[in-house]
Amino acid sequence: MQQSLGNGANPAFLACVLTCLVLSLNLLMLWVSSGAIRAQGGVAINPEDGARYGAPVSELDPPAVARLLRAHRNAEATIYPFLLLGLVYVLAGGGTRIAVPIFTIFIVARIAHSIVYLRAMQPWRTIAFAASLLATLALMAAVLCVLLTA
Amino acid sequence: MQQSLGNGANPAFLACVLTCLVLSLNLLMLWVSSGAIRAQGGVAINPEDGARYGAPVSELDPPAVARLLRAHRNAEATIYPFLLLGLVYVLAGGGTRIAVPIFTIFIVARIAHSIVYLRAMQPWRTIAFAASLLATLALMAAVLCVLLTA
Amino acid sequence: MQQSLGNGANPAFLACVLTCLVLSLNLLMLWVSSGAIRAQGGVAINPEDGARYGAPVSELDPPAVARLLRAHRNAEATIYPFLLLGLVYVLAGGGTRIAVPIFTIFIVARIAHSIVYLRAMQPWRTIAFAASLLATLALMAAVLCVLLTA
Repeated sequence: MQQSLGNGANPAFLACVLTCLVLSLNLLMLWVSSGAIRAQGGVAINPEDGARYGAPVSELDPPAVARLLRAHRNAEATIYPFLLLGLVYVLAGGGTRIAVPIFTIFIVARIAHSIVYLRAMQPWRTIAFAASLLATLALMAAVLCVLLTA
Repeated sequence: MQQSLGNGANPAFLACVLTCLVLSLNLLMLWVSSGAIRAQGGVAINPEDGARYGAPVSELDPPAVARLLRAHRNAEATIYPFLLLGLVYVLAGGGTRIAVPIFTIFIVARIAHSIVYLRAMQPWRTIAFAASLLATLALMAAVLCVLLTA
Repeated sequence: MQQSLGNGANPAFLACVLTCLVLSLNLLMLWVSSGAIRAQGGVAINPEDGARYGAPVSELDPPAVARLLRAHRNAEATIYPFLLLGLVYVLAGGGTRIAVPIFTIFIVARIAHSIVYLRAMQPWRTIAFAASLLATLALMAAVLCVLLTA
């Protein structure tokens, strides 16, 4: 198929797809965990769940759930822009020499951020966040470079 | 135009576009409703709105608004990864035989989730969420398959 | 490279990439500011940060931080769907005559929304949000048009 980007001829697209798969899994694991830990903790945020499971209903989540949701929200705030920029970079014809190191640093930084956030490890959380932010800024610069040299 | 994916020659892309349209509408309706219901309820979350409409200002939203925002956040957490993966699947050259059933199940599950969340219907909310999650995992597997057989 | 969309031959893709760059920057600035203002304000939302910086820990953010997070959440709720639809529009072969005015209105409306939200200026916040919403609905209609005339 002519329009396909997914064959071996475009390794930058392959890197982008793998990044999308790993980070989507990261996001979904955080989200599903927050619901699972809330249910395990015997509290409910919706009255219908409280009635169903005989659990007390509270607007405020227990600390472990609130922490998971903060980690998830931080992941959303950084991962969605990065994946959109990564896709745009590859569609613009950007190569692997820049994509692979940036994508790798971002993936490692984001997985590390989830782990150290849940384990309450500072200053590692701030370091992991800063690394993911720098990788995003580097990707923005790379997108601009591809546009200017096209 | 040669690079276009949108003509009849690529029905998988067409399915992806329709999925993106329907689910974007789903997200925007939840978001706009949350603001509309808050305004109707005569409360404000911003002091400038309270001053403007003579409404009491509260950090905590009334239950109906909080429920809409929870439904919206759940929709965001599942729909954005799915749409990115769906786009990547189609760009990789994935076909309709897998895309159409997975996209259809996801759309139905997500619309059902919004409705039953707002109507506080359990266990349907959990079932709809689980179906949308399984469709996402199936799409991830499909993306991997396309990459490996390309 | 044949599959590339990024060369001068496709100005609609160029417009889409610039939109993605500007709005990603908008999102990241709101997000980073919320963390920076919280740290400056001498409060912590995580106990490990409170211990590290000798700051009181509170589940509820101070008003300036809560405002930034509301502005960020509004930006997320509107920008991600728009960028996905914009990418889909360009991949479907949509032209610049429709893309450039819609993308421009959306960018201006979103940047204005961030500014007037942080400055608590009404009714400008509502006007900016409505403009961004209308631009999104116009983009949805444009995507449908491209599909039907392809």
